Amino acid sequence: MDREVTLADVARLAGVSPATASRALGGHPHVAAGTRERVRRIADELSYVVSPDASRLAGGRTGRVAVVVPHLSRWYFGALLEGLEEVLREAGLDVLLYRVGDAADRQHFFRRLPARRKVDAVVALAFPVDEAERARLEEMGVEIVAAGGQVASHPYVSIDDVAAGRQAVDHLVHLGHRRIGMIEAVDPEQRAHQPEGRSRAYRLALADAGIPVEPELVATVEWGADEGAEGMARLLGLREPPTAVYAHSDEVALGAVRTLRRAGLRVPGDVSVIGIDDHPLAALTDLSTVRQPVREQGARAGRMVAATLSGGEAGEGVLLPTQLVIRGSTGPPGDAR
Amino acid sequence: MDREVTLADVARLAGVSPATASRALGGHPHVAAGTRERVRRIADELSYVVSPDASRLAGGRTGRVAVVVPHLSRWYFGALLEGLEEVLREAGLDVLLYRVGDAADRQHFFRRLPARRKVDAVVALAFPVDEAERARLEEMGVEIVAAGGQVASHPYVSIDDVAAGRQAVDHLVHLGHRRIGMIEAVDPEQRAHQPEGRSRAYRLALADAGIPVEPELVATVEWGADEGAEGMARLLGLREPPTAVYAHSDEVALGAVRTLRRAGLRVPGDVSVIGIDDHPLAALTDLSTVRQPVREQGARAGRMVAATLSGGEAGEGVLLPTQLVIRGSTGPPGDAR
Repeated sequence: MDREVTLADVARLAGVSPATASRALGGHPHVAAGTRERVRRIADELSYVVSPDASRLAGGRTGRVAVVVPHLSRWYFGALLEGLEEVLREAGLDVLLYRVGDAADRQHFFRRLPARRKVDAVVALAFPVDEAERARLEEMGVEIVAAGGQVASHPYVSIDDVAAGRQAVDHLVHLGHRRIGMIEAVDPEQRAHQPEGRSRAYRLALADAGIPVEPELVATVEWGADEGAEGMARLLGLREPPTAVYAHSDEVALGAVRTLRRAGLRVPGDVSVIGIDDHPLAALTDLSTVRQPVREQGARAGRMVAATLSGGEAGEGVLLPTQLVIRGSTGPPGDAR
Repeated sequence: MDREVTLADVARLAGVSPATASRALGGHPHVAAGTRERVRRIADELSYVVSPDASRLAGGRTGRVAVVVPHLSRWYFGALLEGLEEVLREAGLDVLLYRVGDAADRQHFFRRLPARRKVDAVVALAFPVDEAERARLEEMGVEIVAAGGQVASHPYVSIDDVAAGRQAVDHLVHLGHRRIGMIEAVDPEQRAHQPEGRSRAYRLALADAGIPVEPELVATVEWGADEGAEGMARLLGLREPPTAVYAHSDEVALGAVRTLRRAGLRVPGDVSVIGIDDHPLAALTDLSTVRQPVREQGARAGRMVAATLSGGEAGEGVLLPTQLVIRGSTGPPGDAR
């Protein structure tokens, strides 16, 4: 075609009404997948360009979503992003990526973004947004959804950190351990927003089992395998080291296992170790863990964003279930054998 | 201030000329880091909004760069993206993220993107762009830079796969191995664009050492740890298994190590294993490898993009050096002890 391709051309060739064609191209949820696919294919073939000013249902939409993430090279954040990106792409929304590593980045992001009005929504991936920041976004008409962080006053998708931690610690208790250590991970850039559910779980599980909590059995480190290795070394330095260790993540747990192996100790013969995540390397290294659906948390957040930008509701916060995965790194205490 | 903040306000408060302030905000390379930081801080404090129409040096720039990546939850791609995003953000450019997993995604991306004219440049992360696609982007005035893939006719940053593979295989040869297997990884979605340098390295190294290449010693798998485990199982099924194995990546190598351990074989006592990457888990699991600077490849690609969008040249293709890292998974053949 020599003249400009119009929405009517796309609709006619796809055998649908212009309204349906518009909804299909706009990622509206109430269009059958087959129809959406057909309309998009035809739009592609005709190189039909959605008019930037007319394309969005609500006024002044940009069709872009900012995704804010503190890390990119760690599996957990990548998996969240992968689930989110897929859903947003299918909804016809573009992803603007912002890594916000430290407090200065964070401040920069929230100062600049609303002023530029470049996006319709912000998705915070395992990144806590405080009330002032949230209010600022709201003022600008920018929606906010959180995934993989903790419970928030804005729409979120997460796991129940207390429940996940209890699955891990209860497993160690059921195996007969009484001297259970915890390698607790924190993010120094987000001190004010620590997800402390995983630590609370440890105290609750021990209390329920009638085991006194001994502060010396808790090693606090930053997230990461090297840090987990260091935390384990601290616990091994105790006069009476633990017979089992609960780590806040699989990476932290894998670091702990390295320290134990280097110290000539058997896992789980001498010390049991369990993490949280079900990182791909947990299966590879036979690590017991609590599985969380990471990709799915990103995808659910993406569906919330698509719904709210189509004029619907993002919906309430959602907590996805976790699951104990028993592998070879946990067993009964050595002296019980 | 009640009136609109202007560039002149920012420049005055920062103590620089409006031209310098403009360059600092536009991410021009020839502005001292301290000046850029000061100008940006002041612009932030004043909530100065760069006019979208006036902000770019060349005509019609959007200030956005599309980053195309086949995977997001694998360390290698995440690390590339992390290096790239940091440089682009500092240059004042926004990152639009597109995951292009299979051939259909890829076709969709190249059909839609130029038509929408949404970006000034495309960065392909470990993602080969063919000549037709490249020509299409060029026609639309969209720059293309590749990072982490292979040598291309457009600007690229990569490693020399042949050199990296030779560092790995030569190490096994120098240890005295003569029966050396290869677990070769391919991406089924990109059959036409296999980076075969790592396979060529194996044949060259063996030829130089006077060792005949035996096809049965090469197991071809898809990228990934489970696939590496399966490839190793195939090599162990040979009448005469190898005494050393070269894997195309650390994840593939870690899978191979798992198979060996499960078969009751010692690493490296019975079989040596080496990978390529220096994945964070290589250090954790004491895996010998060839280190490639992944984050740096992303960052260099980002600097090329910033340079070309500032009216400069992206520069020629760049190959960054790799380095043999000897850890505990490689040693002399068992019968030499």
